[in-house]
Amino acid sequence: MKVIEKILESTAAGDAGKVVFSFEFFPPKTEDGVENLFERMERMVAHDPTFCDITWGAGGTTAELTLEIARRMQNMVCVETMMHLTCTNMPVEKIDHALETIKKDGIQNVLALRGDPPRGQDKFVQIQGGFACALDLVEHIRKSYGDYFGIAVAGYPEAHPEVIESNGLATPEAYEKDLAYLKRKVDAGADVIVTQLFYDIPSEITAALEPIKDNEEAVRAYGVHLGTEMCKKIMASGIKTLHLYTLNMEKSALAILTNLGLIEESKISRPLPWRRPTNLFRVKEDVRPIFWANRPKSYISRTIGWEQYPHGRWGDSSNASYGALTDHQFMRPRARDKKLQEEWVVPLKKFDDISEKFMKYCLGQLKTSPWSELDALQPETKIIDEQLASINLKGWGPAGGYVYQKAYVEFFCYEEKLKALVEKCKANPSLTFLAVNKEGNLLSNVGKNDVNAVTWGVFPAKEIIQPTVVDPSSFLIWKDEAFEIWSRGWAQFYPEDDSSRSLLQEVQKTSYLVSLVDNDYVNGNLFAVFKGF
Amino acid sequence: MKVIEKILESTAAGDAGKVVFSFEFFPPKTEDGVENLFERMERMVAHDPTFCDITWGAGGTTAELTLEIARRMQNMVCVETMMHLTCTNMPVEKIDHALETIKKDGIQNVLALRGDPPRGQDKFVQIQGGFACALDLVEHIRKSYGDYFGIAVAGYPEAHPEVIESNGLATPEAYEKDLAYLKRKVDAGADVIVTQLFYDIPSEITAALEPIKDNEEAVRAYGVHLGTEMCKKIMASGIKTLHLYTLNMEKSALAILTNLGLIEESKISRPLPWRRPTNLFRVKEDVRPIFWANRPKSYISRTIGWEQYPHGRWGDSSNASYGALTDHQFMRPRARDKKLQEEWVVPLKKFDDISEKFMKYCLGQLKTSPWSELDALQPETKIIDEQLASINLKGWGPAGGYVYQKAYVEFFCYEEKLKALVEKCKANPSLTFLAVNKEGNLLSNVGKNDVNAVTWGVFPAKEIIQPTVVDPSSFLIWKDEAFEIWSRGWAQFYPEDDSSRSLLQEVQKTSYLVSLVDNDYVNGNLFAVFKGF
Repeated sequence: MKVIEKILESTAAGDAGKVVFSFEFFPPKTEDGVENLFERMERMVAHDPTFCDITWGAGGTTAELTLEIARRMQNMVCVETMMHLTCTNMPVEKIDHALETIKKDGIQNVLALRGDPPRGQDKFVQIQGGFACALDLVEHIRKSYGDYFGIAVAGYPEAHPEVIESNGLATPEAYEKDLAYLKRKVDAGADVIVTQLFYDIPSEITAALEPIKDNEEAVRAYGVHLGTEMCKKIMASGIKTLHLYTLNMEKSALAILTNLGLIEESKISRPLPWRRPTNLFRVKEDVRPIFWANRPKSYISRTIGWEQYPHGRWGDSSNASYGALTDHQFMRPRARDKKLQEEWVVPLKKFDDISEKFMKYCLGQLKTSPWSELDALQPETKIIDEQLASINLKGWGPAGGYVYQKAYVEFFCYEEKLKALVEKCKANPSLTFLAVNKEGNLLSNVGKNDVNAVTWGVFPAKEIIQPTVVDPSSFLIWKDEAFEIWSRGWAQFYPEDDSSRSLLQEVQKTSYLVSLVDNDYVNGNLFAVFKGF
Repeated sequence: MKVIEKILESTAAGDAGKVVFSFEFFPPKTEDGVENLFERMERMVAHDPTFCDITWGAGGTTAELTLEIARRMQNMVCVETMMHLTCTNMPVEKIDHALETIKKDGIQNVLALRGDPPRGQDKFVQIQGGFACALDLVEHIRKSYGDYFGIAVAGYPEAHPEVIESNGLATPEAYEKDLAYLKRKVDAGADVIVTQLFYDIPSEITAALEPIKDNEEAVRAYGVHLGTEMCKKIMASGIKTLHLYTLNMEKSALAILTNLGLIEESKISRPLPWRRPTNLFRVKEDVRPIFWANRPKSYISRTIGWEQYPHGRWGDSSNASYGALTDHQFMRPRARDKKLQEEWVVPLKKFDDISEKFMKYCLGQLKTSPWSELDALQPETKIIDEQLASINLKGWGPAGGYVYQKAYVEFFCYEEKLKALVEKCKANPSLTFLAVNKEGNLLSNVGKNDVNAVTWGVFPAKEIIQPTVVDPSSFLIWKDEAFEIWSRGWAQFYPEDDSSRSLLQEVQKTSYLVSLVDNDYVNGNLFAVFKGF
């Protein structure tokens, strides 16, 4: 979606007083830096910024890195992404390569800039086959890509730095000329203006910093205070759009927004049980199988490129095919990998040692799980954990409505336990199950086209949404991934001849993956079935 | 859907013991007869026959009448329809005209027959450019229309009447030949065989009838008894498909099925709040605006020919355009028209006389309403009538699930009442409304794209269904029809200069049509808003 449309939507009639915000990031220099940035970004995006932008890394590899970061932001983090693009050292072919790449990746927003002079020079030079200024770039984007892109341009409240003189001011003529140029960029098709930084450094700030300058913590706190006060002034003048140059720092940015009352940790909202995609091609998507609930990135990567994403009903899209499993679905950020090894890769002597791991994870005593990409259990899981079978979650969706969930559990078990479960299901017709082993031997008491909605929401003046389903076809796709995690997510951390490793391989080979739904979400009690199990 | 598919579905694993039934009708000779037939058919179809068939009226106008009846059966009554088609006096162009007509009308089933000899002749004669036998017709249908049609053919348990000799029997050779011919029809593409009548008239029946022959009631009752016993014998032999030649009679057919335990008046089921369409083009349709809830035929006629019917979500089809209002939407069967005039076309002296009519209708004291095509209020309305704002209907949908309804009222009122209502809605954010007068002046507290699901159902191992919505765009289409009913459904029955007529025209000109939803279906109380109104 174009950033201008999001801003207009947010500031429309119903939300006249609402202030929106956005975050700017730059491409880190190291691989670890990139992973750290994404970890931070996940947490920051949970507060629902209007968009995030990533600056343009001029030059070969950095340019490719920017494209890759932008792709992940839009498709995996699922935040509306604006990519900077500059004319520095960019012949038109490179410009088009960048624009075509992000277009293909479902990104719709570009910040069109002239860019700084190349390193070691102090003046911007137009290269052969390149553009002289942002205006050229805006014109090129509109001419070659029509209305596809939302285009932002830079605005200079104090005139462009190059025309600011030694007294810190531009002449009135230079200022007017700068403003006229901005108008030409807008006339050429820009729809959003992001302003350059604008602030003084009055002496009282220097004075305040002097006594605390060796206390990093105190300097940070003062910075947050200063930032908060500046934002308050800006908002008091009627501006409803704050853009934070985060310098890839999470805490200061969030602290300022918290001080301003724009975000609140306890009020992080989830319009759906999973983060709604921003990729242009999947904005209408609103139904997913529950199996990947703890592995949303794996799900996105395996469903990328679908011609149509399920909207309203899952059944209509049941012919869609999943991408094959690749290494990609088993990769983890380094920090989580480390934590996972600490928690899970310990000597395993007997089957109960394995059960214990799952139990501790469910009780929140372990932070990680080989089967989850997430930092902790979803809030729904917590509620089920407390054995509330009939649930009215306040966990997701807009205000004033009701959300529901059929009690759902998924687990591995041995064939004899499965047989006992099948008998119990016969006695209780509200229970439906799917069970399959690694080889694909399937047992079930539902039809192969019986798609079961397991979460749904009813909101004022809205159609019913049913973001999560149990779908037998998807379950058979999921089982390959779920069984593969025994080896690639866990056993592989042990030496080849380790007995713990053999034990895990044994479980992988002999267990069944079971998906169990209690369809009586009003009077049912899913846990009753496990009594005396 | 093809009849064979419906039969296979009904007799599949889960329903192994289920006996299905169907009804045969013939084209009545008079216009009144046709209307009576449709009234009966509505009631009979409520018992969910697998299909109904209509015999072929050979010759000019009767042929057109058959086509028209078949069209109305499939599209308005919404029963799976099979049309008979015979070769008698039918050159291939006429055959194709008939087949193309029903194909266009979304009918998928044909009973292919040779037909009786033309009137006044005792032998069938193949006409120039026509077919000699049913086999020719089956071959032609498969050749020209591929797999589109389900084709039924006639089977003769006692051989074809033309080879039955004076002793009431066919020779074994004639019987074998007849059976071989049946096989050829099946090999040529027929997928269902409907048998000819087969029964003896033993002397005990004649004896039983003799003493009651002047008592019409007793003869009927004996007929029902006989029919029941014959069906029991047939069923005992393992046959699970009964086809009733109703001779357009409702009571005997339903009495036999009731005796057999195949139907039960109190168990008439509704898979959706409205009857699911059978027209091939709209079988996936499962969402409709609530406004036409009491005028389903008008709704069908105004939405006929849509390229896609809403499935799962209404919002996806919101660009669909409604057909213009024609005389068609204001036509009523003669019997209902008469009843309506008795109940509604009385002298009206003041506005309260009009309000009283609506009130009596809501209380069930009037059977008809100019705004309804139906015989009585829907069961949902009854529940609301008893002021249960939070409702768990058992009215529709399969077993083992839950259905919900947001409290909904639609009414006409004057501007001052509307203003009071708007104020009350401001105080109670769970209420959403749409109000519009004849000129199109719209007041509302929802967005123009805010589609509101007002009925929905949650069933085991199924996706959520939401068959009824309130859609602002459709409301504006509906208002023209709703206001037009003041004149064409009511006022027009009075003489031109009658003061009752002027009063109705005045109300039409000055009132607002209001649609009101209480979105809090759990704790709301829609009626509270009308206290002290």
